[in-house]
Amino acid sequence: MIVEILAVGTELLLGQIVNSNASRIAERLADAGLDHYRQTVVGDNEERIADAVLASCSRADAVIITGGLGPTKDDLTREAIARAAGVGMVFDEDQAERLRERWRRRGREMPVSNLQQAEYPDGCTLIENPKGTAPGIRCRVGGSWVFALPGVPAEMIPMLERDVIPFLRRDDRSVVVSRLLRTWGETESAIGERLGDLYDASANPTIAFLASGGEIKVRITAKAPTEGEAEAMIGPVEAEVRERLGTRIFGTDGDTVEVVILRMLEARGWTLATAESVTGGLIAGRITGVPGASRAYRGSVVAYATEVKTPALGVPREVIAEHGVVSEPVAVAMAEGARVRLGADVAVATTGSAGPDPLEQPVGTVVVAVATPDGTRVRTLQMPGDRERVRTFATTAALQLTRMALQGVDWGRR
Amino acid sequence: MIVEILAVGTELLLGQIVNSNASRIAERLADAGLDHYRQTVVGDNEERIADAVLASCSRADAVIITGGLGPTKDDLTREAIARAAGVGMVFDEDQAERLRERWRRRGREMPVSNLQQAEYPDGCTLIENPKGTAPGIRCRVGGSWVFALPGVPAEMIPMLERDVIPFLRRDDRSVVVSRLLRTWGETESAIGERLGDLYDASANPTIAFLASGGEIKVRITAKAPTEGEAEAMIGPVEAEVRERLGTRIFGTDGDTVEVVILRMLEARGWTLATAESVTGGLIAGRITGVPGASRAYRGSVVAYATEVKTPALGVPREVIAEHGVVSEPVAVAMAEGARVRLGADVAVATTGSAGPDPLEQPVGTVVVAVATPDGTRVRTLQMPGDRERVRTFATTAALQLTRMALQGVDWGRR
Repeated sequence: MIVEILAVGTELLLGQIVNSNASRIAERLADAGLDHYRQTVVGDNEERIADAVLASCSRADAVIITGGLGPTKDDLTREAIARAAGVGMVFDEDQAERLRERWRRRGREMPVSNLQQAEYPDGCTLIENPKGTAPGIRCRVGGSWVFALPGVPAEMIPMLERDVIPFLRRDDRSVVVSRLLRTWGETESAIGERLGDLYDASANPTIAFLASGGEIKVRITAKAPTEGEAEAMIGPVEAEVRERLGTRIFGTDGDTVEVVILRMLEARGWTLATAESVTGGLIAGRITGVPGASRAYRGSVVAYATEVKTPALGVPREVIAEHGVVSEPVAVAMAEGARVRLGADVAVATTGSAGPDPLEQPVGTVVVAVATPDGTRVRTLQMPGDRERVRTFATTAALQLTRMALQGVDWGRR
Repeated sequence: MIVEILAVGTELLLGQIVNSNASRIAERLADAGLDHYRQTVVGDNEERIADAVLASCSRADAVIITGGLGPTKDDLTREAIARAAGVGMVFDEDQAERLRERWRRRGREMPVSNLQQAEYPDGCTLIENPKGTAPGIRCRVGGSWVFALPGVPAEMIPMLERDVIPFLRRDDRSVVVSRLLRTWGETESAIGERLGDLYDASANPTIAFLASGGEIKVRITAKAPTEGEAEAMIGPVEAEVRERLGTRIFGTDGDTVEVVILRMLEARGWTLATAESVTGGLIAGRITGVPGASRAYRGSVVAYATEVKTPALGVPREVIAEHGVVSEPVAVAMAEGARVRLGADVAVATTGSAGPDPLEQPVGTVVVAVATPDGTRVRTLQMPGDRERVRTFATTAALQLTRMALQGVDWGRR
């Protein structure tokens, strides 16, 4: 089963957005063991979409299209599929009623133009979209299957996972199982060197590396007739990787560092607070992104302006005057202040210089302190890149150092 | 001049990385007024790369390839271009010496396998790579130009800007100018209807719509012999769009809502604070993402746990007990408390139910309050989608309502 991806949208051709849909779909195709050799992007042009559909169908057993299903005049994927399939368009009164009902529930009248979302290529099957207005489409073009999904990732991904992938795998009785081991603290090439021989020898299970946001993920994937057999194939490889990487591994599969932290806190009946300067609320944002975070997370004081650090967190003015605001004593005072003022067992604090102009210290200097019932640890780090990267990497580093403090891994004690 | 982009790399087909090179190149093609209708991705396979090159050359005047120029066995772009052009490979002794010299300067012996980076399709021109080892390639395939650049963005972009774009524009004396108008508060289809006739009539300047994160952007693009003439063509269309959309437009070009807010605050000598519950630090994160935010932004109290709202923000316990934590009186008390406690002129507060389990109110209920020297406004909103979307849209809504409060646009006063 060979699958191609076709992303539709003039905004992609203008470079206004990155084609993240293609990589999201590609990742899931790889997980499902479906072969995938080509991706294409075309703009909102009926003829070019139809040409691309036909070209993909000439090479592949299935094409997954994203985008161009919306309610505006430049949403032309439905018409383009009909043109490629050589069929007309039909109006679906049930779907029109569902659209009207959706607008009514929001207390608004549906614009007439939205009715184009109830027109479909004749003979196609609609794919339910639980998160939005535009259903997807499945239809036959030549000997291949064509799927059309919305461009909005939050709508597209559930439809892909619930309908498209299971349909494409319907004749495949094998299962694909993946294990994701999440690491922090070493570069991709250093991890690659530690696991080089395993990588070279890997066929089934396969090993792959993925770097994102300061973390390196190691993915082990096995294909077998049953889930149990796939797990049995993964087992020894996973054990070997864990043996070699040790505490660099902080989480498995969906366990982000914030999930791991909240789980450790809950197990101890502890609570967490944050005090942020350079990360400006991003740590709080990551933690509160986890459902149920309020069971262990108290809150944050984002003391962005220097003069707020004293009244809001109790950082002594003399400490700021003597050491500067980007300093280990200030980070320690912020963490200890947040711990007391927000009534938490553990507090993490950040201060630093994110740029573009340096704040006391060179751009990229970040200080992280973690206060726990056992004492306070602090470390000064140097982050690469521009303001956005410094803030993102500082957020990840603060969370990872909090995790390590909770695990008792040594990284700097005062 | 029609240009296609071909990205080479199996990691793209596995979804391990996003094809950000394509969007970076596409953006620069658009800025340069070069037409661009299609992007393709193929893996590290000589035959498929060669096929894709030939297909692109049959449709376009030029193809820009990224990736596959490195020193490892799976770097096959050079051979694939030779195959597509029907020429042999030649060994370039000068380039081999440059490679050896580069390694010597780093005090290392060059691995023999790296010599493949000195082999090129016969008759091609090398493009200098000031930031890395692999030069680029320019050569003729059929009637079209083929450019091959490295996949590393830091190497690729300077070569694109210095060599490829000027070469493609060598006969073109025109310039392209774009204006981006940012709107909030109406759906893409509603904006589309208001501007439908302008969109239908648009050729030069063109009009395009782009929805992201709850905002709809309207892009007006003109091509003309000079910048002044392009601006003169955009002028009347922009005036008409502004007339029809009024205060729905909140910013131009790079002016995000947080930039607009900070600029208005600075102009008045005012400061801002935030008090976040449901948005959990995301508003602070957006504001502090703007360089120089500390000139007007004091900080935030993320009062995530209900019991933190009283000590940290002074929300009276009786108000929480009587109205619930997701209520207008609590949002108002949070905003007014943050204004006083963080010593700011303006404060925005959020409380709500992000899910997956409802908190007092149905999932998606979000209350925003903005306290200013003129009084406090409050509004209850219903957001669609899952936890992540509710939080993202609530963040955008809180920022937009702050902007409207500063502009004196009425949206709910108490």
